[in-house]
Amino acid sequence: MLQKKVLLVDPIRSGGVVPDGIKRELLEYLDGYSTCLYCTGDLHELRKPNIKKLVESLEEFIDCDYVRLVHGAREGMFTVMFAMFKEYVLKGARAPVVVADGNAHYTSILAAERSMLDVVFTATTEHPEYCVVAEDYEKKISEVEREHGKPPLLALVTYPDGYYGNLPELKRIVDICKSHGVPVLINAAYAIGRMKFSLRDTGADFVVGSGHKSMACTGPIGVLGIVGREAEIVLRKSKFKEEKEVELLGCTVRGAPAICLLKVLPYLKKRVVKWDAKVNIARYVADRLEKELEFRLLGERPRRHDLLHFETPRLYEISVKIRDRFFLYKELKKRKIIGIKPGITKRMKISTYLLEKEDANYFVDSLVEIVERFEKYGFTNR
Amino acid sequence: MLQKKVLLVDPIRSGGVVPDGIKRELLEYLDGYSTCLYCTGDLHELRKPNIKKLVESLEEFIDCDYVRLVHGAREGMFTVMFAMFKEYVLKGARAPVVVADGNAHYTSILAAERSMLDVVFTATTEHPEYCVVAEDYEKKISEVEREHGKPPLLALVTYPDGYYGNLPELKRIVDICKSHGVPVLINAAYAIGRMKFSLRDTGADFVVGSGHKSMACTGPIGVLGIVGREAEIVLRKSKFKEEKEVELLGCTVRGAPAICLLKVLPYLKKRVVKWDAKVNIARYVADRLEKELEFRLLGERPRRHDLLHFETPRLYEISVKIRDRFFLYKELKKRKIIGIKPGITKRMKISTYLLEKEDANYFVDSLVEIVERFEKYGFTNR
Repeated sequence: MLQKKVLLVDPIRSGGVVPDGIKRELLEYLDGYSTCLYCTGDLHELRKPNIKKLVESLEEFIDCDYVRLVHGAREGMFTVMFAMFKEYVLKGARAPVVVADGNAHYTSILAAERSMLDVVFTATTEHPEYCVVAEDYEKKISEVEREHGKPPLLALVTYPDGYYGNLPELKRIVDICKSHGVPVLINAAYAIGRMKFSLRDTGADFVVGSGHKSMACTGPIGVLGIVGREAEIVLRKSKFKEEKEVELLGCTVRGAPAICLLKVLPYLKKRVVKWDAKVNIARYVADRLEKELEFRLLGERPRRHDLLHFETPRLYEISVKIRDRFFLYKELKKRKIIGIKPGITKRMKISTYLLEKEDANYFVDSLVEIVERFEKYGFTNR
Repeated sequence: MLQKKVLLVDPIRSGGVVPDGIKRELLEYLDGYSTCLYCTGDLHELRKPNIKKLVESLEEFIDCDYVRLVHGAREGMFTVMFAMFKEYVLKGARAPVVVADGNAHYTSILAAERSMLDVVFTATTEHPEYCVVAEDYEKKISEVEREHGKPPLLALVTYPDGYYGNLPELKRIVDICKSHGVPVLINAAYAIGRMKFSLRDTGADFVVGSGHKSMACTGPIGVLGIVGREAEIVLRKSKFKEEKEVELLGCTVRGAPAICLLKVLPYLKKRVVKWDAKVNIARYVADRLEKELEFRLLGERPRRHDLLHFETPRLYEISVKIRDRFFLYKELKKRKIIGIKPGITKRMKISTYLLEKEDANYFVDSLVEIVERFEKYGFTNR
């Protein structure tokens, strides 16, 4: 902890911290179009800087047939949904519906809405686990088939979701969807870059990952991975500009974020193999907070992700008593711990991704100290 | 010139060079989601960093009702075209056609193709000027009306185009389109950030600009400006997430490029008022190259933009004689002049945007020296 300036526990930011050395290297790529001096007509074919090699390395990293750089996971989901909509819904083959897990991120809903698609959500188990019920894909897909006389356009699985960090049973879900001939898109914005991920192993067709969320990358950037024949739909070439892919509008991430991903990928390959240690820290923090502060952990058990979501009644009671919703935020900031949502006290959502064991102890000790002091002395005796 | 490491004459990169001081300030914003620590639900409403103020300043800078950050000019054009398609084409009010100037950039064609729209091009004058014929909008719009029984969805004007740097008669074109009730989108990727631009003055509905192309900004980023009632269509809120704009998928440029634009805007405000001096340099370079090397300037005269496109028969003859298409690229690189397309000798497209008078002389003198030497001694006697 002592080497670090601050401890960052923000779930959306902990996986996106760029190594300092790479930041300095990026200085010379911060000009606009820094990717494009040796343009040969397509970003993904560029050899200098070697974006083509980046794409090939990502195809290996994600284990899929094709990778394309996109502006983020949401833009990747929209690209898939809208391309599929034009091919299958407009031509009458499929219903304008995405069957999505009940924990799906709001951006998947926006991507569907923008693509003129309805979203049907599968059930989750009750409080406090909120696990996606794999079998409910069977039920929801069948309902769409009955109602529309054709299968839904797409199934979406958020792996893991950003609320509870739950990892759904991918294999089971994909098997169900495939038995109905429904293509599957995985939103792995919280997985790719943190943990090992093989699209081929899942049996799904598409995956999106987020550079700025989990791939230690300057944003905005994301990756879209594809296995199999739907690639023809999503990566179709323009009728007018033969080398350009229509759904990507030709070239996508024409600048520094693409260079950053190129430079950071070797580091990502190393860090994903240390995922178990990251999960162990998360479990350790969760255990201590449950035992010492009676925080109530939401989501599946045992934890399999660094994202932790707690109900925190003692924090809420303090905030009511001292009439200050921001006390925790301010106290943690004094201790150089940042990333807690200011003003939220009933719940706490954190990521332990950047915490080593001693940081984890410092974080929990700080919380315990703050809570006990405020409970004992309130606001006036600080 | 002596202070600079290299002279950059690349048309797509000369307007996107970020001032060094701002590059260093960006170092602390290179982590993923660097915009989002104090998220209040919408990027454009953020107060820390002050993206809301950036948006308001841009609304003033571009002189329009609404500005949104987008991933680039092409993404902005797609956002407009697709939103308008859903509102007007799918509901039967307009024909699925964009009437575009004959010099339109390929990305406008891709944006239309992705939006399921056809493109009808207006005429340009002949070689060597290739000026957009304003009156042809009247003819092409009328043809669409006759063929489809309804007006085209949208008119597009590229201001200026990226091939010849021609500035079409905006006012005249917009008047024609408006007399047919056709909304107008201006692609100002080569204008906004270089020269003063007022969307309100043009009478058009939409404009897109490019951060990485002309706004001295780390890419990818662009701006979408809107005047008037079509804003309701393009900026409609989600039915499911009430604070989120559907066509933007919630938030767009969530990272360093947005911070860069925030920091660079005061500099842009200053540089656009010096546009006349930039044009004078372009004219000076064009004059010298025409006189001294018989380069043939394409595009309108007098020049009103830093983008210069020449036919260069003497360069081509040298390349044939010495059997090396890359001689010019290599010779210029030796002299620290970069940005000429390697291997292209029949034509030369450059931007003089970054050249001061002495740089301009160094550039022209270098070309003259190279051409005369190769013509005299060929390749073997270098």
